[in-house]
Amino acid sequence: MSKSPPAREALAARLRACVGSQYVIEDAETRRPYECDGLAMYCELPQLVVLPGDVAQVQAVMRICHACGVPVVARGHGTGLCAGAMPHPEGIVLSLARLSAILAIDPEARTARVQPGVRNLAISEAVAEYGLYYGPDPSSQIACSIGGNVAENSGGVHCLKYGLTVHNILKLEVISVEGEKLDIGSEGLDSGGMDLLALFTGSEGLLGVITEITVRLLPVPERARVVMAGFDTIQAAGDAVGGIIAQGIIPAGLEMMDSHAIVAAEAFAQAGYPVAAKALLLCEVDGTDAEVQEHSTRIETLFRQFGATSIRTSRNEAERALLWKGRKSAFPAVGRISPDYYCMDGTIPRSQLARVLTEIDRMATEYGLRVVNVFHAGDGNLHPLILFDANVAGEFERAEAFGGRILELCVAVGGCITGEHGVGIEKIRQMPVQFSPEELAQLEAVKQAFDPQATLNPGKGIPLLKRCQEYRTLEGHAHG
Amino acid sequence: MSKSPPAREALAARLRACVGSQYVIEDAETRRPYECDGLAMYCELPQLVVLPGDVAQVQAVMRICHACGVPVVARGHGTGLCAGAMPHPEGIVLSLARLSAILAIDPEARTARVQPGVRNLAISEAVAEYGLYYGPDPSSQIACSIGGNVAENSGGVHCLKYGLTVHNILKLEVISVEGEKLDIGSEGLDSGGMDLLALFTGSEGLLGVITEITVRLLPVPERARVVMAGFDTIQAAGDAVGGIIAQGIIPAGLEMMDSHAIVAAEAFAQAGYPVAAKALLLCEVDGTDAEVQEHSTRIETLFRQFGATSIRTSRNEAERALLWKGRKSAFPAVGRISPDYYCMDGTIPRSQLARVLTEIDRMATEYGLRVVNVFHAGDGNLHPLILFDANVAGEFERAEAFGGRILELCVAVGGCITGEHGVGIEKIRQMPVQFSPEELAQLEAVKQAFDPQATLNPGKGIPLLKRCQEYRTLEGHAHG
Repeated sequence: MSKSPPAREALAARLRACVGSQYVIEDAETRRPYECDGLAMYCELPQLVVLPGDVAQVQAVMRICHACGVPVVARGHGTGLCAGAMPHPEGIVLSLARLSAILAIDPEARTARVQPGVRNLAISEAVAEYGLYYGPDPSSQIACSIGGNVAENSGGVHCLKYGLTVHNILKLEVISVEGEKLDIGSEGLDSGGMDLLALFTGSEGLLGVITEITVRLLPVPERARVVMAGFDTIQAAGDAVGGIIAQGIIPAGLEMMDSHAIVAAEAFAQAGYPVAAKALLLCEVDGTDAEVQEHSTRIETLFRQFGATSIRTSRNEAERALLWKGRKSAFPAVGRISPDYYCMDGTIPRSQLARVLTEIDRMATEYGLRVVNVFHAGDGNLHPLILFDANVAGEFERAEAFGGRILELCVAVGGCITGEHGVGIEKIRQMPVQFSPEELAQLEAVKQAFDPQATLNPGKGIPLLKRCQEYRTLEGHAHG
Repeated sequence: MSKSPPAREALAARLRACVGSQYVIEDAETRRPYECDGLAMYCELPQLVVLPGDVAQVQAVMRICHACGVPVVARGHGTGLCAGAMPHPEGIVLSLARLSAILAIDPEARTARVQPGVRNLAISEAVAEYGLYYGPDPSSQIACSIGGNVAENSGGVHCLKYGLTVHNILKLEVISVEGEKLDIGSEGLDSGGMDLLALFTGSEGLLGVITEITVRLLPVPERARVVMAGFDTIQAAGDAVGGIIAQGIIPAGLEMMDSHAIVAAEAFAQAGYPVAAKALLLCEVDGTDAEVQEHSTRIETLFRQFGATSIRTSRNEAERALLWKGRKSAFPAVGRISPDYYCMDGTIPRSQLARVLTEIDRMATEYGLRVVNVFHAGDGNLHPLILFDANVAGEFERAEAFGGRILELCVAVGGCITGEHGVGIEKIRQMPVQFSPEELAQLEAVKQAFDPQATLNPGKGIPLLKRCQEYRTLEGHAHG
C-alpha cells in the first residue's frame, strides 16, 4: 500500500456517511464473528466491518478505501474453507450479506440475475416452480452465498456432470478497486474480448468485488438413481471409476469413501453401507427414464466386472435419499470420532487415485495421525480429512504439515493444489510447488492489472515472489 | 514499442542463426501467402515469416524480437475469420506450422497432448482407434490448427452440447513475450491460482504464444440421428429452438437456415430440403440407442407442436449424412449465387432469434444488399452472410457497414459481437459498443500484464482507448 491507512475513527466516520452508521461495525465484540471464515484456525480482527446496502454504496466504499489505501476483504456468508475471507488487520471486511435479492428470473432463457449475498440453495428454491435449479451444489449450499461461490469457483457432488461454478454463470457485474462498475461476460456462449469471466471466477477477491451474477439454470432431471458398490481394495474401486468414465457415461455424481469413512458414516446414518468394505462408491445417474435405466444397468455390470463385493441400487426416492444420507453425514460423523479435523482439497488425475490414497495412508503413519477419505472420485477431487486434537500440543501443526505434503503429492502426480476450496491463506505456501517463479510473476502481474496498490484481499491467493523462498524454507522444515 | 525495430536484414540474420536459414522467409513473393488469414479483405505484408521447428526455437525467436521491440503475430494454419493473424507491417509472422506433432495420447484419462500446428481433425483421426474424438468442430476442421482454435476459442456445430474450445482443453504450455515457458491449467477439473487457461483461450495472440495443448477427448457416441423440420415463419422456428432447450434436451447440434439458405443449399446438394419453407431446423441428438430414440421422438413431437410444416428424421447414417450435406455446403452454395460474401459472427440470447433476424432483413433492404442466414441456433450464434460484389464500387464498404450494424444489434439485445471467430481487426470497431471505457481499460491492463511493450499481435483484439472516439466517429458515419 502506498499510503498509510487513516485512523480507524476517521475511516469509520467517512464510511458511516456513505452506508449509514448501523452498517459500520466498530466495536471489537461485534467484529469478532467476522474474524475468520469456515477455516477457523486462521483468524484476524479487521479494523471495521462494513455492510453496504446497494451497489452504489459498494462503489462509494471502494472509492473511500482506494483513496486511503485501506485493504478490502470481501465476504459472502463466510463458509469458505481456505481462509480466503480472513480479514486483514489493517483493513475492512466488506460484507455483501445485505445484497441478497433475486433480481430477475428468465425461465425461457433459463437464467437468473442475483445479488452476491443470495444463498446457493435459495436460487434453486426460487426457480423450482419452473422445473429448474442451479447446478453447483457445495456441501455448504444451505448457507453459502453465490458471490462466495463465484469467488472460489465452488464445485460439489454434481460438478462431474454439471460443471463448477465457472461453467454455470454467464455474466458478472463487478466493482473495481477504484469503484468503477464493470460488466463481464454475456448471455451468449462466448463474449467479446478476453475471457475475464473465468478469470474472475475463483479469483478470491483479488481482482474486484462481485455485485451481481447471472447464473445458468438447469432443468430438474426427470429421474435420478444411485448405484452403491463396495470393494475389497481401494485399487479396485479406483479402477471402477476409470472404467465408468471410459465407457462414456458421465454420472451426475461419483463419490468414493474409504473404510474409515464407511464405518463412521454407517454408525451415524444407518444407511446400510457395507461396513466390511475397504472402499465404497456411490454413483448417481440422472436424466430421462430411459437413460437412467440404461446407464444404471451398465454401471451395475461394470461394478461387477471390477470386482464389487456388494451392489445396491435405489428403487425409489426414499432409498436414494438414504444412500446419500451416509455420504452427506460423513463430515459430522467424523466429528464424532475426533475432536477436530482438517479438510484438505486437492485434485489428481483419476488414474492416480489408488496410488495417491495408498501414499496418504503411508504418510498418516509417518505423522501419527488418522486420515479419512470422502471425496469426489469422478473428477479426482480429494478431500482427505486429517483427524487431530487441537488440545494436544503440536497436533495441529502436524496436521497442517501433513496437509501440505498431501497437496505436494497431488502436484507430483500431475494434479493441483485446489479442487473447489481455493488457495486463500491456507494453500499459499504450496503455490510455489505448483507454479514456477515465472508463472507466479505472471499471476502477480495480472493481479496488478486490476489492483496496482494491492489493497484487494492482500496476502491471499498469490505469494509475493520475495516470500516464495521463505515458503520453500518453511516447507523444508515441515518435511524435515 | 519502445525501441525502433532493426532493419530487416539484421533481424533476419539473427533469426536465421536460431531457426536455420530456410525457415526465415525474406523475399516478398514467398511472404505473400502470409499476408492475410481467412478474412482476405484485410492484408499486410510482414517484414519476415519465421517457422521455428521446436519450442526452444520459439523461445529464442521471442527473446530476439523482445530485445528488438519487433511485433510478433503468431499464426496457425491461417483459416481464421477475423483477421486475427493479419501480419503487422513492422513485425514478423511466427508460423507454428512446423510444430505439428501429437506428443501423447492417454486413452484412459481421455486426453491428448498436441503441438499447436496439429490440424483439428487430425486429433480425432489419431485417437479414433480408442473410440474417442476431439469435440469442437469448426467448419474449417480439416485445415485449421488446434493452436489457432485455442487462440480464437473456436466452436462448431456440436459446441451446443460439447462446448467451445475452452471447455475441451485442460492445459497449455505458452511462451511469454520474454521467451519464458509457462504452464497453465492442470489435468484436473480446476487449477490452483487464477484461471489463466480461459484467459488465454480466445486471447488472439495478445498474451503469449501457445506451444502445447492438452485436450480432452470424448467417447464417440453410440448413435446419432438428425431431425429436420421446415417452418412457415422464422418466429415459429425460433420458438421451437427455445421449446427444445426448455424441455431439458441438449441436442448435439441445432442449426437454423433461412429461406435463401434453404434454396441455395438444396440447389447445390439435393438434400431433400423443403424449398418452400421460410426456416429450416436441423436437430441432431446423440448418445446411447435408448437416449437417441427417446430424444428424437420427443423432438418430433415438439416440432409438430410448434407448427412444423414438414418433418423428416434420418433412419440411417447415409440419410443423416445427406441431411447434413445441405447445411455443410451452404457456404459454397452461397458462393454460387453471389460473387463475394462476408460471413458475420455474433451471439444473441436464443429468445431474441426472431426479432434479430427480422431486423437484419429490414437492414438488408436499407443497405440494398442480400443476406443469407445459416447458423448455430441452439447457442444463439448467428452467421449472417452478407452478399456483395467486390467489383461494384462501394459494395464492400456497404457490406462492412451493414456487418457493423448487425454486431451492434447483437449487443443491443443482450448478446455480443463474437461467437466463435474472435475480434481481431474485423470487430475492433465494435469493441467500444460492447464495452465501456472502464472495461476496455481493464482489458488493456490485462494485456499489459503479459506484454508491457505491446509487441504481441499489436492493434488486434482491444482498441487502444485513444482510438475509441475515432471508432465511434467512424460508426457514426456508417450509421448516417
